[in-house]
This record gives sequence, structure tokens and C-alpha cells, in this order.
Amino acid sequence: MARATPWSRDDFGLFRPLQTRWSDNDVYGHMNNVVHYSLFDTAVNGWLVEMGVLDFTAGKTIGLVVETGCSYFSELAFPDKVVAGIRVAQMGTSSVRYEIALFKGEEERAAAQGHFVHVYVDRASRKPQPLTTEWRGLLGDYMK
Amino acid sequence: MARATPWSRDDFGLFRPLQTRWSDNDVYGHMNNVVHYSLFDTAVNGWLVEMGVLDFTAGKTIGLVVETGCSYFSELAFPDKVVAGIRVAQMGTSSVRYEIALFKGEEERAAAQGHFVHVYVDRASRKPQPLTTEWRGLLGDYMK
Amino acid sequence: MARATPWSRDDFGLFRPLQTRWSDNDVYGHMNNVVHYSLFDTAVNGWLVEMGVLDFTAGKTIGLVVETGCSYFSELAFPDKVVAGIRVAQMGTSSVRYEIALFKGEEERAAAQGHFVHVYVDRASRKPQPLTTEWRGLLGDYMK
Amino acid sequence: MARATPWSRDDFGLFRPLQTRWSDNDVYGHMNNVVHYSLFDTAVNGWLVEMGVLDFTAGKTIGLVVETGCSYFSELAFPDKVVAGIRVAQMGTSSVRYEIALFKGEEERAAAQGHFVHVYVDRASRKPQPLTTEWRGLLGDYMK
Repeated sequence: MARATPWSRDDFGLFRPLQTRWSDNDVYGHMNNVVHYSLFDTAVNGWLVEMGVLDFTAGKTIGLVVETGCSYFSELAFPDKVVAGIRVAQMGTSSVRYEIALFKGEEERAAAQGHFVHVYVDRASRKPQPLTTEWRGLLGDYMK
Repeated sequence: MARATPWSRDDFGLFRPLQTRWSDNDVYGHMNNVVHYSLFDTAVNGWLVEMGVLDFTAGKTIGLVVETGCSYFSELAFPDKVVAGIRVAQMGTSSVRYEIALFKGEEERAAAQGHFVHVYVDRASRKPQPLTTEWRGLLGDYMK
Repeated sequence: MARATPWSRDDFGLFRPLQTRWSDNDVYGHMNNVVHYSLFDTAVNGWLVEMGVLDFTAGKTIGLVVETGCSYFSELAFPDKVVAGIRVAQMGTSSVRYEIALFKGEEERAAAQGHFVHVYVDRASRKPQPLTTEWRGLLGDYMK
Repeated sequence: MARATPWSRDDFGLFRPLQTRWSDNDVYGHMNNVVHYSLFDTAVNGWLVEMGVLDFTAGKTIGLVVETGCSYFSELAFPDKVVAGIRVAQMGTSSVRYEIALFKGEEERAAAQGHFVHVYVDRASRKPQPLTTEWRGLLGDYMK
């Protein structure tokens, strides 16, 4: 079972600070593997909302997650401060693969890293929608 | 069913910034009532850890929650920025009642407020332990 | 700080089995105090959906939580089996106070118990709506 | 971006029923992608505890997650009843790859499926430990 290699901060051009929570730690005293995905969602969707492209309450287009994955290299735990690095690895007509690394404090190497694939769909019909020019422009700036 | 009155920032001398997460929002598009308690835990325990009195990994004394409560006045939602106000409302020999208000952005009035009661116990025996002088001194500074 | 007295199974006429999850346990090896509220929501809303009175996706009326509280008597932990006892303690024109006890396995006394107050509102305007006759009838059967 | 193909019930010899919770649903009215991993943990660890091989409170050996992944085919949502199919896809000296499918109600095809890789380590030193004969025997029965 081959293991991934940790990404570094140099692999990213966009960073989002993230807080950990008391409930993130499981019985083994570290962040439960599930929480990393909650941080991925928070980092990417928070950024898309701030950039004005995602309106999850009323927008016509929403992003549905069709695939996720994560590799864990070293422990994170509350009350660690975490920074997420975000990049766009692939962009299709209506789908995007985001790659995210979680860095602990000031560390250069990722404690964990992963990805998720969003398919953008019409909120009502749930049919795929081509990404708008505005959205493509924003994401294009963060392709690596 | 009488309703509580929202506390204001003036009622607190200690504040902790808190992030919201994507998963905090439920089907109604706002922060699920459960999440507020997760923020209470995070604010208070994060502070106790920083102050050096709580060591939840190896410390001899841990705080068990025996009672909690919350009143909800207005909606919070990801990606809101939230600030928690914290105060110590009662301090017994081995128990403490913390009161916490959650303020949205720059608002003066709490969006939600509540409390929890910690009983401090020996980690192994789970028997109540008198609070140390150091702990009492720290908490005494934030009694209201 | 006066403590509540645990309710017994005899205090309830409606029961819902609940599963615990790995992530419910915190660093102290027991169910985090926050999770109890997630179980309250699940027990009551799951019942209201099954009874056909709550349609949280498309229904005109939704229940917003304005107050919650919980007392903790003994530890619950994954992988415990839990049973929730549910009763209706008060019913106003548009609000209901639900009381819930969490029983561990076959135990007669609650490990934890609490309440939440729902105000029923119009989904769009978020203005309180009088409970329908159908809803009042259902809840009336479980008043204690 | 190639998509996975849904597994069927025939691909599994071990099944665990799982409850959904109110808080599993996000603003889009379906189970948030993060929750699937919480169900994976619950299904596999719950089974390992029942079988008597995992004692997460006091056991000398614990399982740390080093890799996870999930593909999502169709929506799950509270209050759906879900069944997890579990199989052992690979077994190394001290690591195991579990594959899990989540089936909605009576459906034959997975609504979502994924895996996680556990490395079994000494609780104190966190150094990998060879799986015991008992553990290997149990897992071997569910290899596919």
C-alpha cells in the first residue's frame, strides 16, 4: 500500500486559516480523520462565497461532491492552529478538482492532504451546468 | 414559556473569536442548535488550555460537563464570524458555571447565549477534586 | 448549584432507539456533551417525520429551536445502544416544549435528560404559525 | 475525471445497519459528504469492538487512519436507513485496507462507497505492531 508524499506550502498560492474545535479530538487525543474533510469544505466553500461566485442559499448553481480523498501524515489536534492551502488541479466543463493541504502552525510540510471533486449543478434539477466565465476566471488563477 | 433576554458585550470581559464551518448549517440554512454547544466548549476549553490550567491529555484533573443550556435569539450561519464572550458565574469547591454569549460579527447583542457547569474530577477515579489556587485565581478574574 | 433528578422509563410513553457513533466519544473516552443534543433532534424530528407532520424539505411550516437544556448523570459512550424517551411537556399556540431522556441499554434511569422548545414558523417569512389540528392531536397523545 | 462504478450487496459478506441523524443533512438537504466517513468509522470500529479484537479504551494496540477515500453516486439523507457492507481488501503485516459501501434502504447498488487504511500501532509509542493471529483470522474471513 503505497503512501503519498506530503505537499509543501510552495505548492500553493492560496491559504485560509482554520480553527480547530474541542470536538475534533477523538478518544486517541487527536483530530478524527473525518474532521479533515469538514475543514476542506470550510476552506474551499468559504473562499468561493467570499469571492462572490458561490451563493449556497439562493444561487442557481450549487456544487455537489462526487469524490473525496485524504492522506494523513502527522497528527493534528485541538487547539492547533491550522492553515489550508488550496489549489485547482483540474477543471472540466462543469466539474472541478480541488486539492487541499492542511498545515499545522508554521510547518512547511502538510500534516494531511486531499482533494474533492465538485460537479456544479442546477439547484432544482440537479443537472450539471457549465461553469460561468466568472467562475472559470477565478479558478484559473489558482490552477497548479 | 418565558424567554431569556440577550446579553450584551458589556456583560463580558473575555472574548474569543470563533470560526464557523460549512457543516454547521443545517437544512434550514442556519447553524444547527447543537453547534452552539460545540462553540461553547471550544471557547472555554481553548482559553483554559492557553492559560495553562487545563491539560486534557495528561493533566490529573479534568472537567466533566454536568449541565448545559442555551437560548437562541437570532440566526448564526456559516460563513459568519462569531465572537464568544465568556464569564464565570459561579465557582464552588470543585465546580464552575461558565456563561457564554455568541455575538455575530460586530453586533452588540448576543445571537445566542448559554452556560455549562464543569465539575472538576480526578482523571482516573472521576471523583471531584477541589480547584487549585492557580485555577481559582484565574477564574476569579472573570467572575461577573 | 442544584442538580436535577434522573427521569425513569415510566415517565415516558414514546421511545426511539438511537445508535452511537465513533466520533461521539471525545478525548475523555465518553460521549461529548454536545452529542446529546444531536440525539434529541434526531429522536424528535425523526418521529415527527414518520408521523407525517414534519416535512423539512418542502413543508410550509418548520420548527426553529429557541431554547435547549440538558443534565448529564452518567456517561454514555460509543458503542452503547441508547433509547430516547420523548414527551410533550407544554404546548402553546405555536410552540412546543419536548422533554427527552436518554437511557443506556436496558437501564431504568436516564443517563442524561433535557428539553428543547420548538417555535413553529412559516418557512419563508419565519413568522410563528399556529400548530395545525393534526399536529396538536399527535402531540396531545404524548403530553405528560 | 473517471468515475468509480457502484458496488453491489453481492460484493460483501458482512453488513451493519446504520442510523442517520438530523445533523447529517446540510443546506442542500442531503447527507454532507463528510458524514459518510463517520459512518465508515462507526461500522468498522463497531464491528471490531463487538468481535473483541479492538479495545479503544485500554487495548495495547490501536488503529490509526492513514488514508481514506469515498465516491458518491446518489444522495443519502436523514431519516434514511442505511446499511454498510464491509470487506477487507488488503492485509499487510500491520495495516489493513477496509472497503465499505453504503446502501440506502433495500437498494442493491451502493449510494456511496469508499475505503480507509488502518495502521495498527502501539498506543503509547505509536509504532506499528504486527496484527495478532486472532485479528488476522477474523479479518481473513472477510477478505474479498
